[in-house]
Formats: sequence, C-alpha cells, structure tokens
Amino acid sequence: MKITALAGGTGATKFLRGLTTVISPESLTVIGNTGDDTLIWGLHISPDLDTVTYALAGLLDETRGWGVSEDSFSCLAAMGALGVDTWFNLGDRDLATHLFRSERLRAGESLTQVTDAIRRALGVKSRIVPATDSPLRTRILTPGGWLGFQEFFVREKALVDVLDVVYDEADRVRPAPGVLESIAEAAAIIVCPSNPITSVGPILAVPGIAEALTATRATVLAISPIVGGAPVSGPAGKLMAAKGLPVSAVGVAQLYSAWLDILVLDDRDQALLPDVVRLGITPVVTDTIMSDRRRAVALARATLEALG
Amino acid sequence: MKITALAGGTGATKFLRGLTTVISPESLTVIGNTGDDTLIWGLHISPDLDTVTYALAGLLDETRGWGVSEDSFSCLAAMGALGVDTWFNLGDRDLATHLFRSERLRAGESLTQVTDAIRRALGVKSRIVPATDSPLRTRILTPGGWLGFQEFFVREKALVDVLDVVYDEADRVRPAPGVLESIAEAAAIIVCPSNPITSVGPILAVPGIAEALTATRATVLAISPIVGGAPVSGPAGKLMAAKGLPVSAVGVAQLYSAWLDILVLDDRDQALLPDVVRLGITPVVTDTIMSDRRRAVALARATLEALG
Repeated sequence: MKITALAGGTGATKFLRGLTTVISPESLTVIGNTGDDTLIWGLHISPDLDTVTYALAGLLDETRGWGVSEDSFSCLAAMGALGVDTWFNLGDRDLATHLFRSERLRAGESLTQVTDAIRRALGVKSRIVPATDSPLRTRILTPGGWLGFQEFFVREKALVDVLDVVYDEADRVRPAPGVLESIAEAAAIIVCPSNPITSVGPILAVPGIAEALTATRATVLAISPIVGGAPVSGPAGKLMAAKGLPVSAVGVAQLYSAWLDILVLDDRDQALLPDVVRLGITPVVTDTIMSDRRRAVALARATLEALG
Repeated sequence: MKITALAGGTGATKFLRGLTTVISPESLTVIGNTGDDTLIWGLHISPDLDTVTYALAGLLDETRGWGVSEDSFSCLAAMGALGVDTWFNLGDRDLATHLFRSERLRAGESLTQVTDAIRRALGVKSRIVPATDSPLRTRILTPGGWLGFQEFFVREKALVDVLDVVYDEADRVRPAPGVLESIAEAAAIIVCPSNPITSVGPILAVPGIAEALTATRATVLAISPIVGGAPVSGPAGKLMAAKGLPVSAVGVAQLYSAWLDILVLDDRDQALLPDVVRLGITPVVTDTIMSDRRRAVALARATLEALG
C-alpha cells in the first residue's frame, strides 16, 4: 500500500519516524516543503527536506529538532571570527549536505535530483521529493516589513507580530516531477502534523497539488498540529491567526476542507468534533502528542487504522 | 622600510613568521601565489594565500604546514558519507575561509578584495595580495596526462613523473591591483624560500611582474629553497628537473638571474658560490633550515643584514 505524506519539519519527522516503523519505508513518498529554503553563506539550505532526510536516516538531532546529532559548530565559529552573520546555525556535518546540494544545483541538477541523491547516500529508503523545483518562498509581513521564513523563525525567534503570510512566486511554479503522480498513485495521503501555514501551506500553494488532493479517490487524512488551542511546537498559532483562522484543529480543518476526508485530533479536543463534522470531515480522536518514539508509533498505528 | 615578499606556501610561511618578528608587520606586503588555486566542492580554495594568512595570524597548523591548528574534519567525513571525493583535506574552521571567499567572489568582489578582507578580519597587519585576480593555473604534464597542481601534489602525493609545467592563461592575465606598485615602492624585495616552479613561477608568469623586478632599483634578494641538491620540502626538485634546471641553488639562481641581486644559500652549499657569482648574483651564505622559530628569526636577521 503506497502512502504519500505532505511534510514540514519537526512534527512531521516525529510522525514519519513512527510511520516507517509500522509500514515498509519503501512504500512511503514524502512531499517536502521548500517554502523556507534559503541562501546562507552562498549555500542552498532546504531545512525541511534535510530534517525529514536526517530523521529517516536516523541522523537527526532529536533534541534540537534540526541538524545532525552530535554535530560540531567549528565552521560557524570561524565564520563568526570572519565577521559573518551566524544567526543561522549550521553544524559541520550538516554543512556537507548544503555544500553537496549547492554544488550540484550550480552544475544544473534539479532540487529533486539532489534531494534524491542525498537520501540515497544516507540510506533512506522512502522517497523524498520537494513540492517544487522552483523557488517558491514563504514571506512573512511584520510591522517592520517583509521577512523570509528563516529570518522570522530563526533570526527573530518568531517573536515579532505577523500581519500576513504569502508564498512568493507560487503562481509561476510547477510541482516537481513525481509529486502529482505520487498523489494520484497513493492508496492514502497523510498530511503530517506540521504548521498549516508555513509548512503545508507552501506545498498546497504549488498549482496542481490541491487539485490533485481533490481529484484523488484515495483517502486524504491530516493530523492536527494544534492541540487544545495551541500548536504543539513552533509559531503556527500566530501564523494561523494572521490568516484569519481559529487557532485550533477546526482552523486546520477549515484550511484543508476542500479535499480532507479525515482529521486526527487529540483526545483533549473532543469538544471540537461537531465543528469538524460540520465541514464534512470525519474526525478521529487519539493521543497525538509524540513525546517519545513509542507514542509516535502509536499515533502512526491509529492513523493507519483510521485509513482502514 | 617597505619590504615586498613573493611567497608560496610552507617555506614562505616559516620565513615570513620570522621576518615579521624583526620588522614591523605593517611594512610588509606579501605577493601570493594563486597558480595552485582550485575548486573543491564548488568552493574557491587559495591554498598559498590562506597558508600565508593563517601563518601571519598565528592560526596555521605548523605541523602539517597547511590549514588551521587544532581544526576538526567533521564536514569532510560527512562529505565522504555522501560519496564525495575527499582527497583534498578541508578542516571545519578552514572551510569558513573558503565559504567566505567563494560567496564574495560570486557576488562580484575580486580575489584581492576578499584576500584583504580575510587578513584584516583575522588581525593580520601585513598586506597580502594575490599575484593576479585572474585564473592563472599551474598545470603539470605527467605520463598519464595533465593534472592541476592540487591533483598532482595532494591527490597523487607528487609521486608521478613530471614531464612539463605550464601556467595556463598566463599570457592573458594582469597583475592584481597594488602588485606592481608594491614592487616599485619597496626598499627591498625578498623572494621567499618557496618552490621556484610552482610557487614563485606562477607569480613571475604574470606579465609585468618580472619586468617590475628588473626595473626596480631596490635590491632583490631570494632565499634558496634547495639545500644540498634537494628541496627542503615538497616536490621542487622533480619540477625543476622537468624544466631542465639543475636541482640546486644554482638552478634557482639561473631561473631568477634576469633580476636577482642577492641569493641566500645554505652553509652546506659553499661549493656553489662561484657558479652563483658567475651569474652576476651576490651569494650570501647562512643557515637556511628553519626547523624552529628561533632559526627562522635568525634567517630573517641574516637576510636583512644582507640587504644592508
């Protein structure tokens, strides 16, 4: 049974680590967010693709939720000594991925090709595909002006107010090769518990992807990253509010309602079931807090059960 | 008293470290070799400029003779895991220099500008100037074909036979800004004890530099890197032989005879004095083996005395 997952960073990696222990990793295709890709020190950084790749390779620093475990930061320190901005933390091992990607992109390979080469080299058996090979970028409007996602999230620590979120170039980009096919061929599609605005949003903004989710006869299931009125991690609440959505699983359901069949909500959000049902979506209630591997596996099992 | 030095790597760095303890570092301009610059992982590496910069910043790994002391190699190991060639050793701290340089070059800065920014950031008070901003590259003809200098020296460990050495593009390049001026304005010019073919040779191959050495009324002094019929370090012997030169201080004198006033030879090369004198060059004999800092300082003092 082929499964295609739409994934951002932290929440997605926990879920996918659980999922690939209960399904064959080869049967999984992950469509990754590229809206927060950025250039640092002249290198092309794809934070979400890397986080998913590292997680499935068993290399992810799970405490930080990004980068390679037990990495060192000697190059970063030397960059600081050269007077370079070092607000974006790049570990020495992590750097290899960005150097590898940047050189191949400059040589004319696509992000899809490079992403595939990296996951294969690191022994990841699931396919990992960027939503698009083109430079779609999330921009955040703050009282001080527009910021790239990493400037907002890492440099400003998501502490500034958010007035709007847009996906630059979204109307001009195309899905990467294999993206629409992986949706059309999947027996089920899972939207990971990722930030709906800046992790899943940029994927959905690629013309053709939301249409493919609407067109498929396979079940489309999402896991709410919002529990009890707040995101499990990250700035999703602030970003959803800026988009006029309730900061709750109902807000997630509203955003996905055009194509979503099943929404997995946390036990403590029982009260929201009628609102979800009203949107034509089947709610499934379980424990969605993946505080350890065992609970992530349990959520993956509950998800597969819900898919039937 | 302004001094301009022509410098390659290892031998030059030992001498320059000695020299800058006996003269004011601000009075020194180093013209650095760029013939063995190379692209590794998409990064512009300038091994000789970096070695000189690290040496004068007190950062050089003096045991290896290249790179930053106490550096780690985590990125290199991760590159290996990605299946990338890792015959060129790049340390994690060292990488920062190459990332910094590559990004600025891509943004349109010249190698001269970037080299100056790096030495300033690292607190080096002497000027360090590349011989040229253009891509002049040393190529080594071996029985197996042409190699770049780093392929010959690092990848092949200089073990293959050398049939010829050329400086690609040498007829098309120009001296970097400040190079000719630093020669014209210097009270003395010192050619460091560097490989005459692949360290000093590419500098001399830049049109205008040999002419400036001929034109200056200042004393031009060289220190022979060949002692007792063999180079103190590196593959200079093999390269000189390929160019039809005797592998001795006399071969060095022949190569530099058009503009050299004084050649500093090692004590054990007393027998070569008549041959040096016959070339119209004043020989000065002293201990040239810089096995420790004290001896490097002594050589610097002897050199200044010879300059008068």
